Order: sequence, then C-alpha cells, then structure tokens
Amino acid sequence: MQIDMLISASWIIPIEPENTVLEDHAIAVNDGHIVAILPAAEAEIQFQAEVHIRRQQHVLMPGFINSHGHAAMSLMRGLADDLPLMDWLNNHIWPAENKWISPEFVHHGSLLACAEMIKSGTTCFNDMYFFPEETARAAEHAGMRAVVGLIVLDFPTAWAQNADEYLQKGISLHDQLNGNSLISTAFAPHAPYTVSDDPLSRIATYAEELDIPIHIHLHETAFEVQESVEKLGLRPIERLQKLELLSPRLIAVHMTQLEKEEIGLLADTGVHVVHCPESNLKLASGFCPVQALIEAGVNVALGTDGAASNNDLDMLGELRTAALLAKAVSGNASAVPALQALQMATLNGARALGLEAETGSLKTGKAADIIAMDLSGVDTQPVYHPASQIAYAAGRHSIRDVWVAGKQLLRDGQLTSLNPAAILEHAQGWKAKLAE
Amino acid sequence: MQIDMLISASWIIPIEPENTVLEDHAIAVNDGHIVAILPAAEAEIQFQAEVHIRRQQHVLMPGFINSHGHAAMSLMRGLADDLPLMDWLNNHIWPAENKWISPEFVHHGSLLACAEMIKSGTTCFNDMYFFPEETARAAEHAGMRAVVGLIVLDFPTAWAQNADEYLQKGISLHDQLNGNSLISTAFAPHAPYTVSDDPLSRIATYAEELDIPIHIHLHETAFEVQESVEKLGLRPIERLQKLELLSPRLIAVHMTQLEKEEIGLLADTGVHVVHCPESNLKLASGFCPVQALIEAGVNVALGTDGAASNNDLDMLGELRTAALLAKAVSGNASAVPALQALQMATLNGARALGLEAETGSLKTGKAADIIAMDLSGVDTQPVYHPASQIAYAAGRHSIRDVWVAGKQLLRDGQLTSLNPAAILEHAQGWKAKLAE
Repeated sequence: MQIDMLISASWIIPIEPENTVLEDHAIAVNDGHIVAILPAAEAEIQFQAEVHIRRQQHVLMPGFINSHGHAAMSLMRGLADDLPLMDWLNNHIWPAENKWISPEFVHHGSLLACAEMIKSGTTCFNDMYFFPEETARAAEHAGMRAVVGLIVLDFPTAWAQNADEYLQKGISLHDQLNGNSLISTAFAPHAPYTVSDDPLSRIATYAEELDIPIHIHLHETAFEVQESVEKLGLRPIERLQKLELLSPRLIAVHMTQLEKEEIGLLADTGVHVVHCPESNLKLASGFCPVQALIEAGVNVALGTDGAASNNDLDMLGELRTAALLAKAVSGNASAVPALQALQMATLNGARALGLEAETGSLKTGKAADIIAMDLSGVDTQPVYHPASQIAYAAGRHSIRDVWVAGKQLLRDGQLTSLNPAAILEHAQGWKAKLAE
Repeated sequence: MQIDMLISASWIIPIEPENTVLEDHAIAVNDGHIVAILPAAEAEIQFQAEVHIRRQQHVLMPGFINSHGHAAMSLMRGLADDLPLMDWLNNHIWPAENKWISPEFVHHGSLLACAEMIKSGTTCFNDMYFFPEETARAAEHAGMRAVVGLIVLDFPTAWAQNADEYLQKGISLHDQLNGNSLISTAFAPHAPYTVSDDPLSRIATYAEELDIPIHIHLHETAFEVQESVEKLGLRPIERLQKLELLSPRLIAVHMTQLEKEEIGLLADTGVHVVHCPESNLKLASGFCPVQALIEAGVNVALGTDGAASNNDLDMLGELRTAALLAKAVSGNASAVPALQALQMATLNGARALGLEAETGSLKTGKAADIIAMDLSGVDTQPVYHPASQIAYAAGRHSIRDVWVAGKQLLRDGQLTSLNPAAILEHAQGWKAKLAE
C-alpha cells in the first residue's frame, strides 16, 4: 500500500492500549491520520512510503495536550514573580493587561507560546484569553491543534464591555471557526468570582446548543472558596451545581481546595479536572488531591497555566512535577506512576477537551499528532523502561520531532512552520513597553 | 595586565553580594581564579586576555554545587521506580548493588554522572558511595570539583566488611587525596539506622582531627524516626546530639521530619541541611520545611540525590522544584524567591561542604567555577529579570559553557574533558547485566 509517511523508532508508547511499550515498531501515516502501527520489519514490506523516518534510541508517543493556558501571557513571563495570586493579579498582571492588551499583543504573544510549545512537544492546547481570534490565527499559522476560549467576564476589558458583548463576540468567533479541522472553541467564563449567575447559566445553555466544552478556573485558592461562602453562602462548586454547570462539558482548572464529598460530586457528574501543579505551587495556591481524584474515577488532565505564573509551557516538566507531587501529597510512592503521568499529559487532555476521537493517543484512525523523543543522551541512559526515562529524566531538549495531523512542525529540534527570529523581535519590543 | 581569559556577557549574577545582577560586565580569569569582575568596556582596556569569550543574551553565574548524590547509581537510573524508600532499597537497589558493585561499576557510573552534571551546569558535587577512590578518579578525569564520601556502614559490602574496615579504608583514601586541589573528602556514615553508636562517635572525633565534614542521611522518612524511637527511645537527631555529631561539620541530608525544637537545635549547632526535593517527593518521604529552616537561620543547600531516585542530576530542575515547593509548603508565595533558590544551589552548597573560600560565588580571589546560560530562546524570552528566567523558565539545554578552576569542561553544549560515546557504551553494557 502507498502511504505518505512511515516513522519507525526503537520504542513506541501509544498510551492506548494502557501500559504498552512497543519495541522496533513503526507508525504508518496517510492523509494526516494513523493507518497502522506494526513491527518496523513488517511495515517496510506492507507499505511503500513517500517518506521513511527512522529514529534509533528514540520514543514515539502522542504529542502533549496542554489543557490549560493563556498563550499570549508569554509576553509577561517573569514580569512579576514570588507573589501570591491576588496581589500578582490585582497589582501586576491586570494593570499591565489594562494598559497593553490589543490584537497585536495577543497575536505576538500567542506566536511566542506556540513556538515554545512545539519545541517542547505540545501538539494541542486549550486557551483562555482576550482576542481569542488572534490566538486562533497564531495556532493556525503554527499548524497546532487548539481549543480557543470564548472568554467571559462581568467587567469591561479591551476585548468587551460586559457579559453580553463577551458572549456575542465569542459566539460569532465560534461560527467563524466552524468547520476548521484543527481549531475549535470552548466557552471560557474566567472564574466564579469574576462572572455572575446570569451569564454562567446562559453559558450552560449555549454550551449544550453549540455542543462545546466550558473552561473555567475553579477552587484555585482557599481565598476564592472562603470569599464565596462569605458573600453567597455557597462554595463555588455548589454554586456551579445550582447553575447546572457540573457535567462532562465542564473543564474545571486548578481544584486545589476540595472536600471529600466534592470529589465524589465531580466523579458523579463527569466533570474533568485540569491539574496545574507548577502554577499552584508557585502561587502557593495549594495541592490538588490528584490521587484521590483518580481513585474516585475523575478524569485528570494537565496544564501549564500561562507563562506568567509557571514560567514555562513545558508539559514534560509539568508531568514530572505532577508525578512527583502526587506521591508526596498522597503519601504513596506508587501514586501516578510514569505511564499514568504520560496519559494525563496526552489522552486525559483529549478527553477533557472532547477531542479523544481525533487525538491523545497513537491509534489507527486518529490524527498523526506525534512526537519523537531522543533517549540516547547521557542524561537518559541507560534505558531500563522508556516511560520512566521520559517521566523522570528526559528534558525538553530530548524532544526532536513533532507532527500535527501528519505535518512536521519540528524537525530535529528546529521549527518548520514558525520564524523564531521574527517572534523574538516582537517579544523584545513588547518587553520594552511593559518594562517601562 | 596580561591574563588568561576574559568572559563577558549581557548579565552576571555573582550570588555575592546578594541580590545583585550586573549588566554588560566581564569576569577576568587568571591561573584558574577570578581576578576581577567589572564593566565589559573597562575590562577590555584594563586587561589583555589570551582568550576573550563574549556571550550576548547569556547569564554568567557560579556553577551549581550538587550537595548530595551517589554518582555511580546513574547506572541504575530508572531500574525501579514508583516504589516507597524501604521497598525500593531492600528489594531492588541493595540486591542489585550486592550483585554488581565493583570498582569498574563505580568508575563507569561516576563518569556517566560527571558527563550529565557538567552538561547541566554542575561544577562541584558531594558524593556518598562504595569505592569512593573510583568516584574521585572519575571526577579528576572529568575536571570537576568533588567531595568524595568516606562511606561507613555496620554491615559488609563489596567495599568493606565492617565499620573498622570502612573507616580504615576511608582514612587511607583521605591521605592519598591530601593536597589535591579539586578533590577532597568527608566522612559519610550512611544513616543512623545503618551505623551504630561506636563508629558514629569515632567519626565525630576523626572528623575533628582531619578537619573534614560529616555527610549523613538524616530524618529522611517518618519510618526512620519512628523505628529509632521504638528501638532506642530517641529520635535520630537526639541520638546524634548525644554522640556529639551536631556541629557546623555536619551535612544533614533530607530532613523531611522535623519538629519545631529540632529546627532550633539545627540553627544553634550550625548543622547544614541538604534539601533533595525531587527524591523526597518521588519516594513520598515527606516535605522538608525549607522556609522554616531558612527563617531559623539554618544554611540550606540543594542536592539531586542519586539518579536512581530522581532520576536526573539536573540542579537547575532541582532548584526550580525547591523554589516552587517551598512556596506551597509554607503557604507563602514569597518564600524562596528566584535569587535565593540560585544561592541554595551554589553558595549554600559551598558553605555546607566547607568550600566557601574557594567556590560558590563569583568573587575576586575565588576559583573560576563559572557557567554561561543562554536566555535567547523562545522559552526564556522576553527577559524582565534574568534570575527569574533561570529559576522558573530555563532548562538544562540553556547551559552552554562550563568552567572549573578556569578550565573549560563544556563548550557550546559539548563536553571537552569526557568522551560521551565511550561512557554510553559502558552504561549500556552495565544495563545489559543489571536488566537480567
């Protein structure tokens, strides 16, 4: 059979089926999709490929899915550090945004984020920010898969004046993107403390009509929960339940403050949790009870959050932090083993975003969203278990090749779809303004 | 003035004086030592350098000091993961060691560790393992600064049969290394639960006579403390106090189990704590109260521990984990800010090892133990605060040049003193044996 591409490597970790590591296998790709995964020797007989890529001492696995971020905030990377969430937001981030946010800022920041994400093996990201059409444009230019958030807030920003305008602009962007093979949308009410009941319940209705997810910051800090209890007599999660937002459409980000019954409620309603360990640690927000959530049957995905509170978009580093932290927080050194951490960073993200039919694992029929990681270095040898080397030893520099829908976006560490020099020039221009 | 080398860069973070970032400065190096740090323009007038290295968009800082590790265990990287400490030791690591430890194993493993450490910016390491003369030989071959541990245990291993033999072999190695400019020694009783009172108190005496530090695993797990209380009616730290080991000579590693009074005792006696956050998380050992120790005035250094429980020797990753974790554990987002994390990974290590007169900061008169980190990449731009980019965004791949005592060990990411191909061939040979 004639196909576009054959990629063979020493190891393949497909994520589906679970706990599988294939040796000396190949992935056959045609029309941007995986048509077969089989032993390399058989593949060479069965397929005539236009391109055959061979990677010794490399692992092929699905690209990472960054399930929560604010791409454009990469322009504010390291602008203000070592501060608690509300001080950081109120006195640094929001004032800078009020002064500088524009379509150009979001476009340039999103391109910078896409370049960093591709180089570190991310093939799909879930975003929440202003001017989402600019983030969509940047992702499309980069060739990445993305879910752009239709952001909603009660208060005015450069993007919209009130909840009605945010919703109206968001829905028209959803319509514009309709039919786009790589870019889709989710409603993105910022947080319970910034969006009131009326827009929240309208979002619940609209999300059903448009059949898209709802992406929200939830139970990020003890302060958020306490303030809600004081003002409304309800914990934020109770309030969302009353407003009928707890469903498999909901992507609940952070969740560092959870009581036992709330974990059960998330499992019963099918809510997806996005764990952002490095942002939660950096802002001293707390510890998401990841192992307890997993044991309760909740789907837990991973996100880096924006580069202004992380300060990188490195999903490999994030999954390592998640795997290590889950052990100490649960007091169980067997919690979140290596392969489970890789699944959280890939397939679980696809499930949270409603994209599991298309991406998140290496499976016949799914899109060829693939990364190749080099384990031949002195920092990843010897290799007893490839998944362990990826989760606990490899670094961003180990990621050499990235494909999205069969199109190569990174070749031996070099970006193919983006121009880093131009992206960096814009980033330095914005820095000069913001640093004033 | 004629000198050997001038290194100029966009930024220099000397660590001493504290909270200092110099722009467009240069470091003048002669006979392996720093002779001046001054504005680059002045330096070019004042010095005639044989070699002038210019690094735009790079930071120069002191090399990292890995204050706790077991270099040779890099050959067991990923051999057994996702297990609690005692299961991991008793059922995996110790059996493998009993079967395979030899001078060759330690030499090859130490060379692999040195290659990884140099590539990730570590210029000095504090080690504890069997056949320490082989680790010393590897470090000398690599050109690294090292403190090799004179290991002591009650039970027999391939290295010695009993405490007397461990001590006698250790002291003779100390004598052999006497006068070596880069390699020194420390007594290294493994832990309170593996070394009895008599050898411990003799070590206290000998350490005074030889004027060297004492390096020990202490309060690593709740189990260790509880077992000591049950068997001896004393917490390990109380026992070491009775045996007169609590002094500025003591390098106490891990310390995840500490009561308030014990923190005060450490401060009063001048004991140094080495924090190994990634190993503590991975083995679910607990959380070292880093911020409380710092507030009490205890010197806290950083170590990766061995690659079998980390699984890398990446001090940049370790200092990031330390900075992030300290915030969440203390509930204070301002705990361990970026520059303090860099100091823990450099100067505080030199203090713990008794080497602060020679290394740990960029200061006239100290050895030229320097690293150059490239911040021009899409993952570290824009740069508002270089220290923040290093602590929260840069990766191992950002480290491009490494010098120890003025000798370049890494040039634009390539090892100059070691042969990676030969090191990797040996590593794979050992893997084939251990994987049996």
